[in-house]
Amino acid sequence: MSEAIKVTVWNEFRHEKSNAAVKKLYPDGMHAVIAESLRAAGGIETRLAALDDPEHGLTEDVVNSTDVLIWWGHCAHGEVEDEIVQRVRKRVLEGMGLIVLHSGHFSKIFKAMLGTNCSLKWREEAEKERMWNIEPCHPITEGIGEYIELPNTEMYGERFDIPTPDKLIFVSWFEGGEVFRSGCCWERGHGRIFYFRPGHETYPIYYNEQVMRVIANAVRWARPRGFMEHNAPNCPPLEKLSPKDVEFGKAGERQDVE
Amino acid sequence: MSEAIKVTVWNEFRHEKSNAAVKKLYPDGMHAVIAESLRAAGGIETRLAALDDPEHGLTEDVVNSTDVLIWWGHCAHGEVEDEIVQRVRKRVLEGMGLIVLHSGHFSKIFKAMLGTNCSLKWREEAEKERMWNIEPCHPITEGIGEYIELPNTEMYGERFDIPTPDKLIFVSWFEGGEVFRSGCCWERGHGRIFYFRPGHETYPIYYNEQVMRVIANAVRWARPRGFMEHNAPNCPPLEKLSPKDVEFGKAGERQDVE
Amino acid sequence: MSEAIKVTVWNEFRHEKSNAAVKKLYPDGMHAVIAESLRAAGGIETRLAALDDPEHGLTEDVVNSTDVLIWWGHCAHGEVEDEIVQRVRKRVLEGMGLIVLHSGHFSKIFKAMLGTNCSLKWREEAEKERMWNIEPCHPITEGIGEYIELPNTEMYGERFDIPTPDKLIFVSWFEGGEVFRSGCCWERGHGRIFYFRPGHETYPIYYNEQVMRVIANAVRWARPRGFMEHNAPNCPPLEKLSPKDVEFGKAGERQDVE
Amino acid sequence: MSEAIKVTVWNEFRHEKSNAAVKKLYPDGMHAVIAESLRAAGGIETRLAALDDPEHGLTEDVVNSTDVLIWWGHCAHGEVEDEIVQRVRKRVLEGMGLIVLHSGHFSKIFKAMLGTNCSLKWREEAEKERMWNIEPCHPITEGIGEYIELPNTEMYGERFDIPTPDKLIFVSWFEGGEVFRSGCCWERGHGRIFYFRPGHETYPIYYNEQVMRVIANAVRWARPRGFMEHNAPNCPPLEKLSPKDVEFGKAGERQDVE
Repeated sequence: MSEAIKVTVWNEFRHEKSNAAVKKLYPDGMHAVIAESLRAAGGIETRLAALDDPEHGLTEDVVNSTDVLIWWGHCAHGEVEDEIVQRVRKRVLEGMGLIVLHSGHFSKIFKAMLGTNCSLKWREEAEKERMWNIEPCHPITEGIGEYIELPNTEMYGERFDIPTPDKLIFVSWFEGGEVFRSGCCWERGHGRIFYFRPGHETYPIYYNEQVMRVIANAVRWARPRGFMEHNAPNCPPLEKLSPKDVEFGKAGERQDVE
Repeated sequence: MSEAIKVTVWNEFRHEKSNAAVKKLYPDGMHAVIAESLRAAGGIETRLAALDDPEHGLTEDVVNSTDVLIWWGHCAHGEVEDEIVQRVRKRVLEGMGLIVLHSGHFSKIFKAMLGTNCSLKWREEAEKERMWNIEPCHPITEGIGEYIELPNTEMYGERFDIPTPDKLIFVSWFEGGEVFRSGCCWERGHGRIFYFRPGHETYPIYYNEQVMRVIANAVRWARPRGFMEHNAPNCPPLEKLSPKDVEFGKAGERQDVE
Repeated sequence: MSEAIKVTVWNEFRHEKSNAAVKKLYPDGMHAVIAESLRAAGGIETRLAALDDPEHGLTEDVVNSTDVLIWWGHCAHGEVEDEIVQRVRKRVLEGMGLIVLHSGHFSKIFKAMLGTNCSLKWREEAEKERMWNIEPCHPITEGIGEYIELPNTEMYGERFDIPTPDKLIFVSWFEGGEVFRSGCCWERGHGRIFYFRPGHETYPIYYNEQVMRVIANAVRWARPRGFMEHNAPNCPPLEKLSPKDVEFGKAGERQDVE
Repeated sequence: MSEAIKVTVWNEFRHEKSNAAVKKLYPDGMHAVIAESLRAAGGIETRLAALDDPEHGLTEDVVNSTDVLIWWGHCAHGEVEDEIVQRVRKRVLEGMGLIVLHSGHFSKIFKAMLGTNCSLKWREEAEKERMWNIEPCHPITEGIGEYIELPNTEMYGERFDIPTPDKLIFVSWFEGGEVFRSGCCWERGHGRIFYFRPGHETYPIYYNEQVMRVIANAVRWARPRGFMEHNAPNCPPLEKLSPKDVEFGKAGERQDVE
């Protein structure tokens, strides 16, 4: 347990190049700011990866040596190659943690892991958000009080089209009148998934200490408890079978029946 | 509630053409036998669809006029077009029911809905299975006693790689020493999904009255409670927003940010 | 399914006698207003029961002929006899539906069914509540739009100490800045339980058509799917046991071991 | 995290005094054998408590300095004082872990935590059990392979009347033809609960290394992540409330309304 957790922070990294306001806030990208904060939290090693890197920075080597993958995407979800999505999905099912931030709700990987549309309402008016901590003894909320208040955020509103979370951690109140399930946990295969709402690119969200504390906590929570591949083995019986008084055809091999 | 439920029974329909033992059991296909039994149960209209039909028999018109889709596939999962899988998935999320039978656990549609590998152990030795009813007041087990005993079945064994079911209905005991979660319910989007294990093609499973009673019950349970499309609307505030004392860049349109 | 649902509406019925403001709103008690609205909804028969009735109006006969029990209590939770609580709990586990309203969150029966404290924050300032419908195709929200707006309510705020609901139906936004899980479904034994937040005694909440529509929908959802007693039978083996090569002491009867 | 976990092992401790076969197996009681094994596992401090101790060995001091409580009871569930049950329940809701073994399924504390009857089928024929590990990367199954085989056990069979577990860890196969959910996790309040089936008093179950490994793993899993009391505070608004154009009566204090 004392070994460092290997985190890869993936960022679409496009807004930072094309939008002056975003560039000013995050000159090296949101992923750089997130990674720096995680390293400062201690016990975490970080790597950066971006859409425009070869294989989106998610080569087999990178994915297979990552404990927890953090995902930020927004305007270019469609440019992520399906092959890479399947590579990441396979690794999550084998045990890798996955933390999806903000507009990543519409990413291919999040929708592939959960099966739903992950749609929601939204509004960009820099309004106030109060994110209530409804699981105050959960490891993801360690050091967080009753709520996190963010003075300026994009609004995300229900209905959020997700499978019922295994555990609902944060519920947001918005100044404009909406609510949102802002922190949600699931397990899929042997991996853990956390969705965390905060993070619009034009607001300095990833400089907020409490937001970053939650992400660091989530990294520790999502750390693999083991890696295990999936297969469909043909298994001999463990108990002696009784003799059968009828005879049946054999279907033959599972994957190739004729 | 008194209107007939529109069921489409989809079958890969390949074993019946290539394997003499299967052909003898199901000369017109397993889907034909299932559909006939459902019609006899009352209140259910049926249509057949097969892999080798144009668009696999799942045109937009068929899918959009189906209340509950039953899926049987085995040796040709890979031949199902991704476009059709996405069409079905979209409709389940909008409210259509989906019942996946037996080897359909490895179908593209089941894996797309759940996000996991859906892998398991297996053995084809015509052994005895006792499927315990652990939810005796659930609508899916109406008229079923403490268990269903099947004298000859293919074994499926745990670990079954699925998300924790919303409700676990049947757990199987196998003569050879394994157990399996044989009846599992989930909701995804607005649709209901039921996985039901029985059904190897070389055994006369779909002539078993109790198995067919469960499937008819599941059709009634999975009937849509409504259909609703998903989108991500930009919404004006419901409450008056306070004036902001800082100014932020605008991200622009969600799908096209530059 | 066409037979009327037998609903018993239980009310503490004390505020209506001691508080002039409440008496003016509900001269015959909140239970009378709720019952009248349910009868008007159709397909529902109602009976009234109150704390000060003999056996709190919940005799064996009444409980055993009730399909769905609605519970409103507030200032006198401690006066409800434990024996009656256990009678109701037994019947819910056998299949009876239970709908707990508003301050009933602290009732003995709700805490006995769920096991937790069911504590929460509160404030009585007649503020605005917007209750978001996050399951728009669920039978409990049939006919309800995106949200229900209540101009004047008591605030209930998270953390609400409940087991994770099987299904979360409503999440409330409050003018004063809090959120709350206002509609929650569970199954316990063979019975269904719905908690529904609206209902402070000094506001005319049970005259609100949308609130009453939700309660009528919940009655239909919570209708028993069957009744079944629980026991712990000693069962002979279904399969032939192998001979044992060791001998063990016998524990004797389960309930009386010496 | 490196501090020792404080475990109290509670045992009814009656069979060991009255049944020669049990006494021979467990001369100092099952709790002594369990505690010794846990100490040997490392990082765990243990205390013993028994029904016939003053306050059943569960004084306020003991309960409030316990991280994880292990519970074994069978023939004398009814002799456990309700006051002590409520003391334990309160502490679990505040964060203490609770591990309930075998016939403890019918204990007052287990039923109080879960709300259900916890009934099941049973048979005492020293038959073979194979307990399948369906969550091979869960911390409770660390070091456990695909299954645990127990040559001689009491049979427990479904339907087990429990709320759907948050996570189902083990499913048992019995030689006589039944299945059972033998390892189940729940969270209630801030505490974690694990039910683990193995453990009939006339068989040497608690000398089995794999059984004891699971219990030690469960102790680590159930370790408190924090302790937190529950209350129902009256809270001032966080946002400025709009002026109200109607006037309402005040209900007065929550617990005393007149």
